[in-house]
Amino acid sequence: MTARVLVVDDVIQNVKLLEAKLTSEYFDVLTAMNGEEALKIIDEEHPDIILLDVMMPGMDGFEVCRRIRSNPKTAHIPVIMVTALDQAKDRVAGIEAGADDFLTKPVSDLPLFARVRSLARLKLLMDELRMRETTSQNFGINMGTDLNQNVNMRNAKVLLVEDYSRVAERISNYMADIAKIDVDAVETGEITAPNLDQYDLFIISLSLNETDGFRLCSQLRSSEITRKIPILVLVEEGEGNQMVKAMELGVSDYITRPVDKNELVARAKSQIRQNRYANSLRRNNQKSIQMAMTDSVTGLYNRHFLSTHLDNLMAKENDKRKKVSLLMMDLDKFKVVNDTYGHISGDEVLKEFADRVTNNIRNIDLAARFGGEEFVIVMPETNLEYARFVADRLCRAIADEPFVISGSETPIRVTVSIGLALAGDKNLSSSKLLVSADTALYKAKENGRNQVMSLD
Amino acid sequence: MTARVLVVDDVIQNVKLLEAKLTSEYFDVLTAMNGEEALKIIDEEHPDIILLDVMMPGMDGFEVCRRIRSNPKTAHIPVIMVTALDQAKDRVAGIEAGADDFLTKPVSDLPLFARVRSLARLKLLMDELRMRETTSQNFGINMGTDLNQNVNMRNAKVLLVEDYSRVAERISNYMADIAKIDVDAVETGEITAPNLDQYDLFIISLSLNETDGFRLCSQLRSSEITRKIPILVLVEEGEGNQMVKAMELGVSDYITRPVDKNELVARAKSQIRQNRYANSLRRNNQKSIQMAMTDSVTGLYNRHFLSTHLDNLMAKENDKRKKVSLLMMDLDKFKVVNDTYGHISGDEVLKEFADRVTNNIRNIDLAARFGGEEFVIVMPETNLEYARFVADRLCRAIADEPFVISGSETPIRVTVSIGLALAGDKNLSSSKLLVSADTALYKAKENGRNQVMSLD
Repeated sequence: MTARVLVVDDVIQNVKLLEAKLTSEYFDVLTAMNGEEALKIIDEEHPDIILLDVMMPGMDGFEVCRRIRSNPKTAHIPVIMVTALDQAKDRVAGIEAGADDFLTKPVSDLPLFARVRSLARLKLLMDELRMRETTSQNFGINMGTDLNQNVNMRNAKVLLVEDYSRVAERISNYMADIAKIDVDAVETGEITAPNLDQYDLFIISLSLNETDGFRLCSQLRSSEITRKIPILVLVEEGEGNQMVKAMELGVSDYITRPVDKNELVARAKSQIRQNRYANSLRRNNQKSIQMAMTDSVTGLYNRHFLSTHLDNLMAKENDKRKKVSLLMMDLDKFKVVNDTYGHISGDEVLKEFADRVTNNIRNIDLAARFGGEEFVIVMPETNLEYARFVADRLCRAIADEPFVISGSETPIRVTVSIGLALAGDKNLSSSKLLVSADTALYKAKENGRNQVMSLD
Repeated sequence: MTARVLVVDDVIQNVKLLEAKLTSEYFDVLTAMNGEEALKIIDEEHPDIILLDVMMPGMDGFEVCRRIRSNPKTAHIPVIMVTALDQAKDRVAGIEAGADDFLTKPVSDLPLFARVRSLARLKLLMDELRMRETTSQNFGINMGTDLNQNVNMRNAKVLLVEDYSRVAERISNYMADIAKIDVDAVETGEITAPNLDQYDLFIISLSLNETDGFRLCSQLRSSEITRKIPILVLVEEGEGNQMVKAMELGVSDYITRPVDKNELVARAKSQIRQNRYANSLRRNNQKSIQMAMTDSVTGLYNRHFLSTHLDNLMAKENDKRKKVSLLMMDLDKFKVVNDTYGHISGDEVLKEFADRVTNNIRNIDLAARFGGEEFVIVMPETNLEYARFVADRLCRAIADEPFVISGSETPIRVTVSIGLALAGDKNLSSSKLLVSADTALYKAKENGRNQVMSLD
């Protein structure tokens, strides 16, 4: 995967060298010689990835990184910190400042291209996930933008697959001591182990005696339960090909033995944070989508969703369409409830009504709040006789048992009127079907309420 | 990228061969010997990619593909059709049945791995985009699931970069004759050309004399405007490395010269369809997200969004929080409007009110419908004096010009009462700020309506 990469370094030779390397691999390269210039370019050009030197006069790399993270428009851009070999502690400081990855000077080709490509792939995915944030920014509002910084790292849990027990023990201790991260260590990769989805990260040795580490990574990537959990592999020194192959399989990151403890912890934390961030974006998107489909008072589908669903059903071929029944329901004299007991009690009645409806329909039926105290049930593959049977049962389920509400000491009596219509030659469009049911509902009201009517 | 691949072929040697090849590259492989078995495995195991032989006794590959596409739960899984060399027309038939890609028997390694990896990457992205569909399926409902089949291919437009003018002409003719697709042909890749985002597909020769085709692909992939538009490259026969390099850069597909017209059109159509499908998923997601944030009657933000936004603002450090002003507004005697002119006219009043509010606030302010005829404006970095100035102006903007509605021949007079509150020592939480503004609003109502009040 190619990408637009910004190289930031105060030494012109370093800039030129990285630029040449990246350009030869067909990356699109931008350059900056200090922090201020970098921030300006980031703001204007939106690079996909930033390679950031730590030691710079004026604003250092940590400060640049913090500023990138605190600006909602740039907080999501991956940052790779470039540190000198003897600055192991800089990596922890880098993570605190919000860096996603690290490269050691002098930068060699294999790690450079592997890390940049891996982050470019990740960015592509994250850009799709961030759509809710982007949408709200287009609305002129920033919401939840500090997520990237404020990801909760509590109770992080790592599964380590390593058959040298002393190495396993040492790694577990590092993680516990430096980052308070819990490690479960196993000696062979049995991916049939239960609860694999509880882990935030897998750390896998590629030098296992009994198991093929690559196969294990591939299985974790292919299984639905584990495919989104990051993998960090331990590779032997000088085994660059191991690393390239692992990254090709979709492994998220690697570390070379002998393991430097600060680097290990920094990389593990970075992976866990990225993954939790992605998960929170997924949850937020899911929540938005559910909210867009449902009515907040009753939890039923909303009118918009009903229309879409009904239009889809009515677009089917004639035979299937003709078997759709529709119930239009209106709570009788609901205004009295609101006026007597207030809106909160009114909402309680609507919620209880919705619950009783839900308990009396099948999984293939769809119940929606049409607006106010009006509700609709769409029943595919249902004739008028069965629909009337359900409607009668609903009428009784509402009228027979008074509603308990917070505004009244004694439960109150609620009834519902229901109009029934069947799709057919007269009701071939969703709007005609709705009008028919509404007309039938009107008849039920005229006829004394608390009853079911149809036009046929 | 690894993946779970299902191999379907009625000849056991073919199955074994493909299984061995894919396993050696660490793909997770499932196998089936006929159509029925394949459909069963697909339903139970959800493979990421399906390699499907065309010629099978009983149900042939086209029929299997059609069934995969017509089942909402499997319609999104990429299918690669495996055809014999002399079956060029099968590719068009494959596309019609919904195939995403093609391989020619005997299947050689390079194209096999390149195509499977490319589709695995695409699937990963599409899975994130499909979340709205998945969410509604979890709700027990299928919506918009036929998208993959019913993608609109009208007015498709392709940019071809090819400097052999006779080849360019021939390709343009194929596309026009077979698929009614418009081709703009250029001789060198000037990606500064305007309106690049109008294209559905780029077809790029990797043997250009003046331009480096790889560089061009990389630029198209790096630029925000073009990065999501698919690229199909033309590679010379025997230049397998060209193809691998191009796929690594993020090119979507390739075709080997001499160009077979049926294959070209089939691949182009497949890319265009995939891209339009992804775009429609993005649009749907965006729409869902906007719906989840806004009130459908007025187009203002809804109460849920307001709460999130206000909580974010109030979570800032003390100094910034203290500069938030809040206006709580309630239309005076709005019930009379609804009772006299009906709900439709009532909604018209709310909409017109919302428009006047929007025209009288700044970009950094946020207006939301709080519920019924109540509205809230949140004004960050605003003192009470300026907030009162805006509130007074709003009062006049509503009262001075009567509202034109469909239910009344003469415009009707509408007024609003406004309560004002400033975040501060007494109003440090969003709920306290809202209560203060609400109390002030009550005073404004008590005092005769059509006016602004604050508690201080």
